[in-house]
Amino acid sequence: MNITLAQAEKAIVAAQQKSKAIDTKMNIAIVDSGANLVAFARMDGAWLGSLDISIKKAKTARFFDMNTGIIGELSQPGGSLFNIEHSNNGLITFPGGIPIKNAHGEIIGAIGVSGSSVENDHAVAEAGALAI
Amino acid sequence: MNITLAQAEKAIVAAQQKSKAIDTKMNIAIVDSGANLVAFARMDGAWLGSLDISIKKAKTARFFDMNTGIIGELSQPGGSLFNIEHSNNGLITFPGGIPIKNAHGEIIGAIGVSGSSVENDHAVAEAGALAI
Amino acid sequence: MNITLAQAEKAIVAAQQKSKAIDTKMNIAIVDSGANLVAFARMDGAWLGSLDISIKKAKTARFFDMNTGIIGELSQPGGSLFNIEHSNNGLITFPGGIPIKNAHGEIIGAIGVSGSSVENDHAVAEAGALAI
Amino acid sequence: MNITLAQAEKAIVAAQQKSKAIDTKMNIAIVDSGANLVAFARMDGAWLGSLDISIKKAKTARFFDMNTGIIGELSQPGGSLFNIEHSNNGLITFPGGIPIKNAHGEIIGAIGVSGSSVENDHAVAEAGALAI
Repeated sequence: MNITLAQAEKAIVAAQQKSKAIDTKMNIAIVDSGANLVAFARMDGAWLGSLDISIKKAKTARFFDMNTGIIGELSQPGGSLFNIEHSNNGLITFPGGIPIKNAHGEIIGAIGVSGSSVENDHAVAEAGALAI
Repeated sequence: MNITLAQAEKAIVAAQQKSKAIDTKMNIAIVDSGANLVAFARMDGAWLGSLDISIKKAKTARFFDMNTGIIGELSQPGGSLFNIEHSNNGLITFPGGIPIKNAHGEIIGAIGVSGSSVENDHAVAEAGALAI
Repeated sequence: MNITLAQAEKAIVAAQQKSKAIDTKMNIAIVDSGANLVAFARMDGAWLGSLDISIKKAKTARFFDMNTGIIGELSQPGGSLFNIEHSNNGLITFPGGIPIKNAHGEIIGAIGVSGSSVENDHAVAEAGALAI
Repeated sequence: MNITLAQAEKAIVAAQQKSKAIDTKMNIAIVDSGANLVAFARMDGAWLGSLDISIKKAKTARFFDMNTGIIGELSQPGGSLFNIEHSNNGLITFPGGIPIKNAHGEIIGAIGVSGSSVENDHAVAEAGALAI
């Protein structure tokens, strides 16, 4: 129950298409069910600092099997998961990370996208996740 | 499209002059377009803890091609980039990091300054960036 | 003078073809001239531990603009670069990392391959590097 | 009893002159008596991987108040300091790091040079150390 490289590359192609359609330049990372990198692409001219963020978003989404933005709501000051970002060598908990499911609804990996506003990052990640 | 050592040293000289003019002691770091250190100077008596901060400010400014203070406005609690500082082995997102552009407006590196108030840090970084 | 994503993906496709031709399963990483990741692919069933090794091989090849195996010859006990692997957050100095040049012979990035014997790793990396 | 920035910059200038005289491209790092970076310069076209190595050589020379190559002789397999490179977040123990003394023979810092053969690295470091 693990994403294949072919599926990961399909997700990256779909994410790139969405990214171009909304005129952004993204870093796109796909991890498997073990939260380990399967495929990655940095579009020409994309922010260098988003490289690490895209991978951390993908890992974070798989670590907790939910969209990264949901964790970010709980990690605020006073929230139940305040500063959870200190774990796992650094989480990124704002939008742009989404679990990837197979046709049976089982989680087989996750996608992380970074390079624009969090709304655009999420939209591109969603396009990638839905391609599978 | 990468800053040269001669340009980096020119920026450091200009930053030091500004630092002395406003009676501060600064750590000054210059990174290239790959966010790797090109030149560095710690003025006598400058805070030791500002060494790492100046380098991280320079890297952060190049990672996202913007002044570090702009990122800090977005990384506050409730902000869209809350806790982005956990990425890239540690970002510094308060003022003092500024991208460096060439005559054509292309980003060729960044400068990071730390050792005084963030207002002073930014002013000294600006003096360095404008010297090129 | 930096590798594009299109070039990086072309190198990964060529490396995968070679890998399949010699019946191996590889991790393949491409970095740019700043030694930052541009593209990555882990073939289905490839060793998980080779993920990090492939990235470190690519970085090492660009860090010193030479094949990783050359450094490994010098880093042996008694060699002039003994234990150089402790630098740069970990180098990998056995074969499988190769600089990538453009048509003018300028280094624009590097490829790192890991997942089989070092001979096979090198052969697959070479196939990727020559595709550009 | 600490190296000043002016002294550090003088050492870097002398090291660069020697480096050019022997047709090499070097990373040059100066640390103070606390083993913290005071000044740094990466010559245009110098190996990127030598950035970290030059800083580690300077730190190593000050950590133990001796030339780095001496430690490397003791850190070989079977030697009394075998694999000491694992300490202090990574030592570099081949030649190119030299303590810097003042006129009274007191150690006030160290220089680390990396970018060519260890013989050249040492020669350039020596030129820098002797300038003070």
